[in-house]
Amino acid sequence: MEQFLKTAKKLMPTIATLPSKEKNRILREMANALRENKARILKENTKDVERAKEQNLQESMIERLWLDEKRIDAMATSLQEIAALKEPVGRVLEGWVNDDGLRIEKVSVPIGVVAVIYESRPNVTSDVGGLCFKSGNIAILKGGKEAEYSNQIIATILQEVLLKNNLPKEIISLLPDSSREGVAKLITMDAYVDLIVPRGGEALISYISKNSSIPVVKHDKGLCHTYIHEDACIDSAIKIAINAKCQRPGVCNAMETLIVDKNIAKTIMPKLYESFRANGTLLKGDKETLEIIPVAPISYEDYDTEYLANILNLKIVDGVDEAIEHIREFGSGHSEAIATENYTVAEYFLDQIDAACVYINASTRFTDGSVFGFGAEVGISTNKLHARGPMGINELTTYKFKIYGSGQIRS
Amino acid sequence: MEQFLKTAKKLMPTIATLPSKEKNRILREMANALRENKARILKENTKDVERAKEQNLQESMIERLWLDEKRIDAMATSLQEIAALKEPVGRVLEGWVNDDGLRIEKVSVPIGVVAVIYESRPNVTSDVGGLCFKSGNIAILKGGKEAEYSNQIIATILQEVLLKNNLPKEIISLLPDSSREGVAKLITMDAYVDLIVPRGGEALISYISKNSSIPVVKHDKGLCHTYIHEDACIDSAIKIAINAKCQRPGVCNAMETLIVDKNIAKTIMPKLYESFRANGTLLKGDKETLEIIPVAPISYEDYDTEYLANILNLKIVDGVDEAIEHIREFGSGHSEAIATENYTVAEYFLDQIDAACVYINASTRFTDGSVFGFGAEVGISTNKLHARGPMGINELTTYKFKIYGSGQIRS
Repeated sequence: MEQFLKTAKKLMPTIATLPSKEKNRILREMANALRENKARILKENTKDVERAKEQNLQESMIERLWLDEKRIDAMATSLQEIAALKEPVGRVLEGWVNDDGLRIEKVSVPIGVVAVIYESRPNVTSDVGGLCFKSGNIAILKGGKEAEYSNQIIATILQEVLLKNNLPKEIISLLPDSSREGVAKLITMDAYVDLIVPRGGEALISYISKNSSIPVVKHDKGLCHTYIHEDACIDSAIKIAINAKCQRPGVCNAMETLIVDKNIAKTIMPKLYESFRANGTLLKGDKETLEIIPVAPISYEDYDTEYLANILNLKIVDGVDEAIEHIREFGSGHSEAIATENYTVAEYFLDQIDAACVYINASTRFTDGSVFGFGAEVGISTNKLHARGPMGINELTTYKFKIYGSGQIRS
Repeated sequence: MEQFLKTAKKLMPTIATLPSKEKNRILREMANALRENKARILKENTKDVERAKEQNLQESMIERLWLDEKRIDAMATSLQEIAALKEPVGRVLEGWVNDDGLRIEKVSVPIGVVAVIYESRPNVTSDVGGLCFKSGNIAILKGGKEAEYSNQIIATILQEVLLKNNLPKEIISLLPDSSREGVAKLITMDAYVDLIVPRGGEALISYISKNSSIPVVKHDKGLCHTYIHEDACIDSAIKIAINAKCQRPGVCNAMETLIVDKNIAKTIMPKLYESFRANGTLLKGDKETLEIIPVAPISYEDYDTEYLANILNLKIVDGVDEAIEHIREFGSGHSEAIATENYTVAEYFLDQIDAACVYINASTRFTDGSVFGFGAEVGISTNKLHARGPMGINELTTYKFKIYGSGQIRS
């Protein structure tokens, strides 16, 4: 693996300085290649799906794994959209002339070698491969064992396009050893790899954070809250709460706990009860909630659980400060929302909550790179540094200072 | 220690939302307190210096450790300068309205709990304490054992000012257990600490990078090069080279290897030899250099050594590509320079070299937060992510997205 990574690192300048027009043309060729090779992709994907069925994997996992012509078209379209994104490399982020007359420019540059670890969905292979390529990075991809055949054929097709364009295929490649030991080895190779992006289960992410000598931008769980303040517009707040929980419960920006102000609890709880029941939500509530509506009693662990399912915790609080305190204790710093018409309370909540995305009067479900307008996303970072929240193509760059002198020496 | 860090973490909102005017007033009070307590500081500093002498520490280390009234005044002035810096928290970095009509603002916010590990100079205690305070962070400071008494009294004086202003003293504190075991424990406390900044020796930094479960922004060595291209203005190039090596050899932005183009070697090498000898520089050269001037022969290890002393490697190359190749092999990604009047070669060098700071026609010695115009600096980051190169007060912030809705739900 060391030799493989050494080779990858050596190719950095080749891809880092490739002109934008070239990169976009090649991305569009990759999109065409995916469309033209649907039969090859489907054949390999069938192997993964059949094995998954034999191994009795969860229905939801097989659903994510499985490809058809429409899904391959979507992967191709995604590559075309990446080609259409504004060039992320070479943006002048700041520029000034210092006291010595040095002209200093802070310019975006590729990070270098980026390793992404992910699960199930084979489209991540082409999405992340394309994003890394466009941002001038070498991509090392490590998909899930369950999608082995699909990821391999997708990577091979992208590599065929690279080779046709006289570029080394190692610019986008799968990690040669995709076993647990392979990952353990990878995260110590700080001489060759500049960034590790783990997307997946908590255990994997925690293991990588603890053991990696390479910087990690993690895509961890979302334990999101919505707080309905006493001055909220009740109808709007209910719609926001229903959307945050029920529109797609299995994702990280879905709400897990709804916090309601005690001064409106008696009015709003019965309405919430009715709306959530109509949406098939399993409700759990604290003591105060149970006095108003007949829901299951809650435990401390429930507040700390990312359900990824249509289950919701209900909690009644005495004012915004108690709501904030609860969110500080249980929130994962992903997305938090308040529903209120009170200006001062809204601004206070925005300032006091330490999360990647803090909403007034909107559903937490909007935390998403493409919804934000970033185009395809690498994921949603729960890191505080480098990239926080939706991670788009610009977050696959870092910067350097270019300094234009005219013979200056320091005195 | 866990209890101590838990308390620190809890105080985050207190300092994160303190108004700028308050913070600046308190920083100026801290400056005054340092000036008023010179006697107390000198008394403790004497203990450190005496112990250092007893233990026969290096003269240079004692020089860095030692304080007098002037040095304490400089520490106070530095705090006043931090007070005068533009507020780093609450900057709107970007803002737009998305397709759904959500108003999205990307706003700078404090990182949270920042631990800084450093050596010798006691002024780092007040500098970094002041920078963290101004940027709304909790500062955990871990100075060197050799400056124990000095760091303790400086921290105590800053804390006295915090207490006088009804703020908890834990906002700026020394790590309670400053032993090796204390640091080992600290770097696993990712639940409470958001960032570790190690400044110091290679072994310390490598240990922390490998073992920390907390994001690290390292301040590693500088192995810097200057390349004199055949189209360089010879006089200017010699001045730049002398400055880069001799003006202050013991710092990270000083040059270690001077690369000279073979087409001008015969002309420039004798002049360089004369100038460097006049500055007392010990010169080492490759085979080609030895054919022109009588210097010591170089080894592979020399190219890989950060001398931090008035010693210089000389190497002759056949064109810009060989120079770039050498820098890629041995450079530490800190600061690299080219001297040339050739536009195309200069731009090529700027693009091809992957370092925090890349210079045309200027000394690498300019890599410095205050020279860049950032004010006091946390240090010079050799990380590629979050902060690269001179790390000013803005790099002690991260960002969050504030999203202003009007009842939006996702469809």
